[in-house]
Amino acid sequence: MDYTAAFTSAVARVRAEGRYRVFANLLRRKGEFPRARWRTPDGDTRDVTVWCSNDYLGMGQSACVTESMKKAIDEVGAGAGGTRNISGTTNYHVELERSLADLHGKEAALLFTSGYISNEATIATLGKILPNLIIYSDALNHASMIEGVRGAKCEKHVWRHNDVAHLEELLKAAPKDAPKLIAFESVYSMDGDIGPIKAVCDLADKYGAMTYLDEVHAVGLYGLRGGGISEREGLADRLTIIEGTLGKAYGVMGGYIAADAVIVDAIRSWAPGFIFTTSLAPALAAGARASVEYLKSDHALREKHQERAATLKAKLADAGLPVMDTPTHIVPVKVGDPVLCKRLSDALLEEHGIYVQPINYPTVPRGTERLRFTPSPLHTDAMMDELVDALRAVYQRYSNVRVA
Amino acid sequence: MDYTAAFTSAVARVRAEGRYRVFANLLRRKGEFPRARWRTPDGDTRDVTVWCSNDYLGMGQSACVTESMKKAIDEVGAGAGGTRNISGTTNYHVELERSLADLHGKEAALLFTSGYISNEATIATLGKILPNLIIYSDALNHASMIEGVRGAKCEKHVWRHNDVAHLEELLKAAPKDAPKLIAFESVYSMDGDIGPIKAVCDLADKYGAMTYLDEVHAVGLYGLRGGGISEREGLADRLTIIEGTLGKAYGVMGGYIAADAVIVDAIRSWAPGFIFTTSLAPALAAGARASVEYLKSDHALREKHQERAATLKAKLADAGLPVMDTPTHIVPVKVGDPVLCKRLSDALLEEHGIYVQPINYPTVPRGTERLRFTPSPLHTDAMMDELVDALRAVYQRYSNVRVA
Repeated sequence: MDYTAAFTSAVARVRAEGRYRVFANLLRRKGEFPRARWRTPDGDTRDVTVWCSNDYLGMGQSACVTESMKKAIDEVGAGAGGTRNISGTTNYHVELERSLADLHGKEAALLFTSGYISNEATIATLGKILPNLIIYSDALNHASMIEGVRGAKCEKHVWRHNDVAHLEELLKAAPKDAPKLIAFESVYSMDGDIGPIKAVCDLADKYGAMTYLDEVHAVGLYGLRGGGISEREGLADRLTIIEGTLGKAYGVMGGYIAADAVIVDAIRSWAPGFIFTTSLAPALAAGARASVEYLKSDHALREKHQERAATLKAKLADAGLPVMDTPTHIVPVKVGDPVLCKRLSDALLEEHGIYVQPINYPTVPRGTERLRFTPSPLHTDAMMDELVDALRAVYQRYSNVRVA
Repeated sequence: MDYTAAFTSAVARVRAEGRYRVFANLLRRKGEFPRARWRTPDGDTRDVTVWCSNDYLGMGQSACVTESMKKAIDEVGAGAGGTRNISGTTNYHVELERSLADLHGKEAALLFTSGYISNEATIATLGKILPNLIIYSDALNHASMIEGVRGAKCEKHVWRHNDVAHLEELLKAAPKDAPKLIAFESVYSMDGDIGPIKAVCDLADKYGAMTYLDEVHAVGLYGLRGGGISEREGLADRLTIIEGTLGKAYGVMGGYIAADAVIVDAIRSWAPGFIFTTSLAPALAAGARASVEYLKSDHALREKHQERAATLKAKLADAGLPVMDTPTHIVPVKVGDPVLCKRLSDALLEEHGIYVQPINYPTVPRGTERLRFTPSPLHTDAMMDELVDALRAVYQRYSNVRVA
């Protein structure tokens, strides 16, 4: 068996589809976001504007977050030194969980090392705890939820994206008394559309299902206290489990779920991905708590964020660029081909100092490749005008290669 | 369907087995490790000595680590703001991967958000990349490797712990040309024994298998530069993939693999648990790199660590306590019953200010419950004497309850 050949061919397959990823090495400077320096492959550095960060509000640069982290490092050191159960629980963890439970109006919350693992571990564990569980998963759910559903090893049905009629059809076909879980997202990060939370909750009531809502692209950004779309729509109390991240709008790292105390206790007691891993570094917990608490009150920052996204969408549309209309802060521009998508991204970076990654398969379905812009409150009108001009230039120059 | 009842019963099952976990809330003080304060459930605080941290060398308290973290926070802020591919790669990540590749003498390394996810994602992805892969997994492999093997969805065989004759029997039975992976650990963290690395490598050569070695409880601690048991035994170049953590001896958080560049490139391109998650916070990468580089040269700290472990084992044995003899820094003391194990642990904490968690199922097999001590270079003789006296007292007081 020639293993090297097998690995080489696995990489070649990715290359052949034009979706081989080259990570841009960024040298950020705190306080200058979204400006950064890019270290080119040949070792030079060049100034760039970052247009694809999920640090949506720039909270990762905020003094309230960074000072909390540094203070925690001074107080207790670097890592947690153990799993939550074996010497890895500090007061920072306890207080952050309390703050998150409060954010969503739930009895309890549980921290994970990432949003990815919170989805994967929680959903998989629900399948183990609840015999004969049937999971109903939205077709565009994030990879981490899909892995969780796989790990649950139970009957599963994929409902067409945001199609509650299809969901109801599937629910109706199942035994009335079977335990059921509907898993979906509030803001779908690549299309920027919103899940039908109320309709899903109504169906959950009607068919006796639990609900699991991934709010990772919404927490901190929507609702009067940053509780997400479920807060904005007054639906948090109707959802069984709300999942969120500390690594996007909150600007730090880590994930969590919020739910009834008994559910959190069960997941805490049964999920390998929670039990068998070193807990979040105390400094991350401290920084995240500062961020969550700060964003419970600064609603103006959220409004500014929405205004910036609306302005960019208007500017792109005015320039005749194929921007997708979204009801959220996500600004996707259609490309539809992985090679072109990469070429546009490369040209923006190399020729215009604009950093936006190509979004190709497997992050989005083939044929829907795109550039995805995430304007923050710190992106100015001038930066937007610069972006629109650059984008028009590279589209004109390259899109005749493949795009219709 | 009464979901609350189902979750309540899931928790009750854990309670009934005496393995319900209550996380001790620790208030550590940088510079005082292994001393800390414990916040009791009724809100008091009491001084304790921590005896179960996996921050084996106290590096989480080291100025070289904490100052690097604070400097990185000042330079670039809190979180990475994106996946490795989408704005989440910084020079800290690039340099840490270089440092880890160098540590193990491999061409490349790849960071994950935890050791757990590095095992799970890498092993599962090998199953996807290599059609018809057969995995041979040591019976005592860590939960994260077991989840990875499950996720690989391929033929698997569990070989009796450290039993290379059994492993060979299984290898021999498989088709000669089938791709094979032998997954095992160097230091088994709960028994403190060591995997037969050379014999496994010999079998791998003979039967054309790859090898995957989990060194999470050995990196930083063994070998002249901290490269683990594989470095100490001069076997690193014979292993296909070495996996390690930044959250134990290195005192920070995160995990990694080191291997040939093409293997790392394939995992990087195919593993959902790597691709779809916010990358490690830059400050963690900075702190970890400082720690890895520091421990490449301070071999005296490793020797002190081994001496401390040997001393504690001798003191426990002299006192007639059922300490398990191990060839490593892990010091397990047998209990054999989950309820007693918890009772001893509670009494040590409440009556003697000694913090050591009970190690019960599912962390170890039922019937092998234990207390597991991890003496660091900072644990003094006086602390050890205190521990031995306290342990003798609680054993005498409680062990007649259940232990033979």
